[in-house]
Amino acid sequence: MLRFQPKNPDFRQAATATFNAQPAMRTLGISIARLEPGEVDLAMDYSAAFAQQNGFVHAGIITAGLDNACGIAAFTLMPPSTGILTVEFKTNLLAPARGERFVFRATVVKPGRTLTVCEARAYATHDGGETLIATMSGTLMALAAREGTAMDRAPAPA
Amino acid sequence: MLRFQPKNPDFRQAATATFNAQPAMRTLGISIARLEPGEVDLAMDYSAAFAQQNGFVHAGIITAGLDNACGIAAFTLMPPSTGILTVEFKTNLLAPARGERFVFRATVVKPGRTLTVCEARAYATHDGGETLIATMSGTLMALAAREGTAMDRAPAPA
Amino acid sequence: MLRFQPKNPDFRQAATATFNAQPAMRTLGISIARLEPGEVDLAMDYSAAFAQQNGFVHAGIITAGLDNACGIAAFTLMPPSTGILTVEFKTNLLAPARGERFVFRATVVKPGRTLTVCEARAYATHDGGETLIATMSGTLMALAAREGTAMDRAPAPA
Amino acid sequence: MLRFQPKNPDFRQAATATFNAQPAMRTLGISIARLEPGEVDLAMDYSAAFAQQNGFVHAGIITAGLDNACGIAAFTLMPPSTGILTVEFKTNLLAPARGERFVFRATVVKPGRTLTVCEARAYATHDGGETLIATMSGTLMALAAREGTAMDRAPAPA
Repeated sequence: MLRFQPKNPDFRQAATATFNAQPAMRTLGISIARLEPGEVDLAMDYSAAFAQQNGFVHAGIITAGLDNACGIAAFTLMPPSTGILTVEFKTNLLAPARGERFVFRATVVKPGRTLTVCEARAYATHDGGETLIATMSGTLMALAAREGTAMDRAPAPA
Repeated sequence: MLRFQPKNPDFRQAATATFNAQPAMRTLGISIARLEPGEVDLAMDYSAAFAQQNGFVHAGIITAGLDNACGIAAFTLMPPSTGILTVEFKTNLLAPARGERFVFRATVVKPGRTLTVCEARAYATHDGGETLIATMSGTLMALAAREGTAMDRAPAPA
Repeated sequence: MLRFQPKNPDFRQAATATFNAQPAMRTLGISIARLEPGEVDLAMDYSAAFAQQNGFVHAGIITAGLDNACGIAAFTLMPPSTGILTVEFKTNLLAPARGERFVFRATVVKPGRTLTVCEARAYATHDGGETLIATMSGTLMALAAREGTAMDRAPAPA
Repeated sequence: MLRFQPKNPDFRQAATATFNAQPAMRTLGISIARLEPGEVDLAMDYSAAFAQQNGFVHAGIITAGLDNACGIAAFTLMPPSTGILTVEFKTNLLAPARGERFVFRATVVKPGRTLTVCEARAYATHDGGETLIATMSGTLMALAAREGTAMDRAPAPA
């Protein structure tokens, strides 16, 4: 049973295309693991290149995954030809980002015509166990295609 | 005139060593541009590898720079042999991260024995002009060296 | 089945006493509606005295309820004789605070010796229906009783 | 020298009228102390009715003041006949809200057609000294007058 009804029947294709258009996601090794209306899982393998001084994944990289998961989740509920950008997010870091693989799971809390609020959680898989390592709450903004060039705000996550 | 008096006379060396121990900073091309007690500027050149779909730097990468600037700024005021980790941060994205070079400028707002609160701003240099593109407020936690292994919280930024 | 095991067998009495010691809760008409380990519901009737210009409850008052719910939820998992204070919180406002009655529902996401992270949601009851009107994520800090006078941070919520 | 140019020549009258239309501000004893384009100071005397268990002002009440200061600051830069509502805010609590009088000082960081980002600081006056007790960063949304009834989001602060 779906919590949300997508306005764009091709939401999967549109969301995937937007995700794939981001070089940063390729560089970080992040991919889409699950995609439903208002719900997205992204996955990332550990890479020592993005570690901080203790060998754990850097908080900013974890945030990049959480932010993108929120952006794609919000995007699945937007009409065709809409752009999207991140307004703000807050991350709480709960445990070291230690693990072989990471999942960024986002859910739309409140969709809106202009603003959509999402929540996301980051999990680390380590020695077969899964640990909640971070949470995010964020606000995303829909951008009408024709207003795309007049954008007065913010880098787009997705 | 310094706003803060460092507790560690070798704070520059300690902060620089901690910064340099982070592979993620090398990978992202972020370096220390200025380092004073409670105040840090980090700098990063544009790289297409970390862009989102419009060619702007991804919000997560901007956040990595802001978070690290906050972490190093907080670290400069901590006693010797202290570890540091990020508790939380919030980022507001104000304008597209479009530019050739980016500066992440952090200031300690309130140092504390356990928790330190910082603020940071990200600026993009583009065609000679500088634009404020993002703000952060964050909380950093000092970790006594001997408690390092008993850490019950969070990836360290710095 | 409880998610959390309280360290204080008298957590209900301790949490209730701390809640009742706050004049602000009486003034705002907020009371405890449910109290379990790591989970708390507070309730508040509408009062025109705390409305903003459209007759809805002011966002700051909603935040007071959310913050207190987080504080009490965190407090239920702390050892006896611990004090508690709020480090930070973020509120996302999702819908007008229109209704006859409001519930502030908090859950501990990650308990810790020093820091506890909570999430809370505010619901408005209006004409028999319930609407999610706001979310909070926040960090609470435990304060050992003997350190109470050396507190270097923050107003306590609970 | 003004940082911002108001679009509404009667911004003082409009902002004051919006502020005065909020019963919550009267109940909390908060008033406008300074009002410039994009900058606002609100002031509040201590009241035991809004204290937490240690006699300090409750964090939610401090947040109400900070949020309102942000809302009014953003409002001073909006066109005539615009409504305003709060999208989100984050509060960091830095020191106990102990004092005889409190000031909530807000500044617009980035005005926008739809969204405006503000920062605010709360200061306590105690025994003649002033202490920074809390910071806020927040996002406010302009609401065209004709869309006022179609509002799909959030309690207005101001």
